[in-house]
Amino acid sequence: MDLNCDLGESFGNYRLGNDEALLSIVTSANIACGLHAGDPLVMGRTVRWAVSKGVAIGAHPGYPDLQGFGRREMNMSAEEVEAFVLYQIGALAGFVRAEGGELVHVKPHGALYNQAAKDRALARAIVQAVKRFSPHLIVVGLAGSVLVEEAREAGLPAAAEGFPDRAYNPDGTLKSRREPGAVLQTVEAVCQQAIRLATQGAGEGTQRVPVDTLCIHGDGAHAVEFATAVRESLLTAGVALRSLSPESLRL
Amino acid sequence: MDLNCDLGESFGNYRLGNDEALLSIVTSANIACGLHAGDPLVMGRTVRWAVSKGVAIGAHPGYPDLQGFGRREMNMSAEEVEAFVLYQIGALAGFVRAEGGELVHVKPHGALYNQAAKDRALARAIVQAVKRFSPHLIVVGLAGSVLVEEAREAGLPAAAEGFPDRAYNPDGTLKSRREPGAVLQTVEAVCQQAIRLATQGAGEGTQRVPVDTLCIHGDGAHAVEFATAVRESLLTAGVALRSLSPESLRL
Amino acid sequence: MDLNCDLGESFGNYRLGNDEALLSIVTSANIACGLHAGDPLVMGRTVRWAVSKGVAIGAHPGYPDLQGFGRREMNMSAEEVEAFVLYQIGALAGFVRAEGGELVHVKPHGALYNQAAKDRALARAIVQAVKRFSPHLIVVGLAGSVLVEEAREAGLPAAAEGFPDRAYNPDGTLKSRREPGAVLQTVEAVCQQAIRLATQGAGEGTQRVPVDTLCIHGDGAHAVEFATAVRESLLTAGVALRSLSPESLRL
Amino acid sequence: MDLNCDLGESFGNYRLGNDEALLSIVTSANIACGLHAGDPLVMGRTVRWAVSKGVAIGAHPGYPDLQGFGRREMNMSAEEVEAFVLYQIGALAGFVRAEGGELVHVKPHGALYNQAAKDRALARAIVQAVKRFSPHLIVVGLAGSVLVEEAREAGLPAAAEGFPDRAYNPDGTLKSRREPGAVLQTVEAVCQQAIRLATQGAGEGTQRVPVDTLCIHGDGAHAVEFATAVRESLLTAGVALRSLSPESLRL
Repeated sequence: MDLNCDLGESFGNYRLGNDEALLSIVTSANIACGLHAGDPLVMGRTVRWAVSKGVAIGAHPGYPDLQGFGRREMNMSAEEVEAFVLYQIGALAGFVRAEGGELVHVKPHGALYNQAAKDRALARAIVQAVKRFSPHLIVVGLAGSVLVEEAREAGLPAAAEGFPDRAYNPDGTLKSRREPGAVLQTVEAVCQQAIRLATQGAGEGTQRVPVDTLCIHGDGAHAVEFATAVRESLLTAGVALRSLSPESLRL
Repeated sequence: MDLNCDLGESFGNYRLGNDEALLSIVTSANIACGLHAGDPLVMGRTVRWAVSKGVAIGAHPGYPDLQGFGRREMNMSAEEVEAFVLYQIGALAGFVRAEGGELVHVKPHGALYNQAAKDRALARAIVQAVKRFSPHLIVVGLAGSVLVEEAREAGLPAAAEGFPDRAYNPDGTLKSRREPGAVLQTVEAVCQQAIRLATQGAGEGTQRVPVDTLCIHGDGAHAVEFATAVRESLLTAGVALRSLSPESLRL
Repeated sequence: MDLNCDLGESFGNYRLGNDEALLSIVTSANIACGLHAGDPLVMGRTVRWAVSKGVAIGAHPGYPDLQGFGRREMNMSAEEVEAFVLYQIGALAGFVRAEGGELVHVKPHGALYNQAAKDRALARAIVQAVKRFSPHLIVVGLAGSVLVEEAREAGLPAAAEGFPDRAYNPDGTLKSRREPGAVLQTVEAVCQQAIRLATQGAGEGTQRVPVDTLCIHGDGAHAVEFATAVRESLLTAGVALRSLSPESLRL
Repeated sequence: MDLNCDLGESFGNYRLGNDEALLSIVTSANIACGLHAGDPLVMGRTVRWAVSKGVAIGAHPGYPDLQGFGRREMNMSAEEVEAFVLYQIGALAGFVRAEGGELVHVKPHGALYNQAAKDRALARAIVQAVKRFSPHLIVVGLAGSVLVEEAREAGLPAAAEGFPDRAYNPDGTLKSRREPGAVLQTVEAVCQQAIRLATQGAGEGTQRVPVDTLCIHGDGAHAVEFATAVRESLLTAGVALRSLSPESLRL
């Protein structure tokens, strides 16, 4: 199982997250590319840390909306989305190359991630950007999402992501945040969910959706504590932790 | 001799320059990378055109100052300049890769170009960014500048740029814009200067500085007309036109 | 009847529109406020011209999306819209005050305008921003729109806008751009539509919606020519042209 | 004596400073205007708090450089500086008006503040922007600076600012940060300096420069603690604390 975390989200004078500590816990880092968060200095520094700790590096492209942190839907055309995603992959890849690392995956951020889970044209635009950069890059998307489907359809390796701090419906979709209990609050519940997602996938019975990577949140007061607990629980439960690789995902 | 032009300087709804026409005239395109001009759609389109016309592609990084078009000096540290240049090279390289092309050179824009001609720390920061991305990329700088010196010092191929529409001092430096006659106004004068720069270099006698590439301005009402005239004059004068290559510059 | 035009849409090195010429034709100027278009220099200059020509000045706030020119919907909360609109009104009002002019109206731009025509929460957020700045400012919105309704509901003067280059449905709504004939192409058709809107309003019979101001497009190759023709036609048809005033709109 | 603090420096998802706590300590708030820091939501919220706590409000304009937090010099023309400062004053004034407050002063930020202390053309551009908005606004600048001189020359009320956490030269200028002891480290030293500046001004003997307002830093781990201590020390020493007013400064 892979543990991924959004990192490199600081910007100029603004600090966000606990990047150095989290890079000792996770196996993959999704690094912001300067449009919804991050800047060239932050990107360079985060890539350097990730390379030195052997954490797999992914681009984390988002909408060009720093003030909204990429969390607001923007009505972009497929052509625009493709170009903006390709831009961000390239920008991050430059730092990875400069540090002698390797770019492994691409995971869209925020509103782009959520929209790409359901909107096929948007998902295709993202997949197209990734494929044009390299057909060996892994697309990370919500387990059961249209984005994962489209990536596989296009012949790209894709990783299905699960959220240990979220409750799931029997069909493997996320329980809506508007419903009570949608967000798990205790360390124990989150760790149990992590083990369940890692060993059984999301959802129940015949509707189960396999999960390839678990998302660890990097912000919030207890991010490091939660991340550490999830990691330990998984190891204790006998789940091996390793970064994503295209080979293991191309079945 | 190489003819280069700054291209891809449109942004969103704003159109600038005559990119398609100029790409049929020049042998190298310096493409803006989204910080002082250009955006992902413009970059993708300009790279596609350049690849299809066989024009060599270079990154044209500038200060992060769209409103000032990268023409205002900003007091950035060397570390900041290096990171911002690397970011822009990577972003453009992604589009070049997606289009099956090859990134050949890097030419800084505006205030960054002018400062790097004289400020050794700044020049080194740019050279360092280029070298970390690839030691095979050509650094384009003002003929006789510190930037060209630093690039060669670092073992990178470097191309010395001349300006056919500018008058030169005997020592090969540009005549200051504050002096009368600094900017050549007629097509004839510009064409003669182009031939002189191509065949004799900038400056006079023992102070002559060889020139590897000539800058063609892409904006202005008569840009295409001037560019065409310069190209024709050079060909008529027997100057062969070809894109820069690392091999020819590493002597 | 008032003739309004979106102006001050240049940005830095990028020129857009024919502001000086149009300011001799229209009676009201909607001036961009720096977020979707315009910058402080452009705003100052455009306000100065408008004051000197006696053209009424309005703020033209848009989404914070320069690359998309404010034409892409953004999923902003009502609180965000209110704050961003208030910001832009204030910024423009500063220049108006500095030039000894008077801010008369507010007309939202692009996607914000279109969404506010139908989305009541968004319309209320805009109205709230205007009212908090001054209850004497006129809100300009699409004739028959929710924005005009909400402004009147809040006790603000509101002006209903018509588009001389667009065909209308019998109920006073704009004919969809997807239908043939939605956009009028000839100067004659546009002038006739201007006269019809000015004298009879939009739509037919009992469904007619009165129109207080006509939108003149400032971009495009023939903008000045069309604007001049519309102005002349209206004058010839006996329609008096004058800027909007709160008094005439508060029935 | 006035105690001022830079506030409203958060941006979108990024939090900075302890605005609510500091607004209970200081008598004047310099509120960022969205170009080097702050955004419309942050501005609205900070103005609302300041009005409710009776803290005097000033605009805190900076260079349009969010990534550099306005701390990098930018080579702007006087015309550009004037327009960008006027833009920011207007934007903030809109929120102040909406909250029923009053804009009292303008204090430039970061590199703009430092440059305006020495560069007369820049100082004049700032003063001009303030004066065109309102000749009753107070210009806040470094004690002994060219900015304060130019403001008074232009007939504007001006307030000389002192820094309790900095050591001063006998001539009333700040001791350079490159010299040891330039920045006072202990609460005691800062409080003593605050009292000295408030009662005797900066510098010594005949070179003394009166101080009208003391700058309290809002960022850093101990900002609230230091601010509280300075306030208490001043009150204990019999220094009355009150916001700046144009009347008291126009002598």
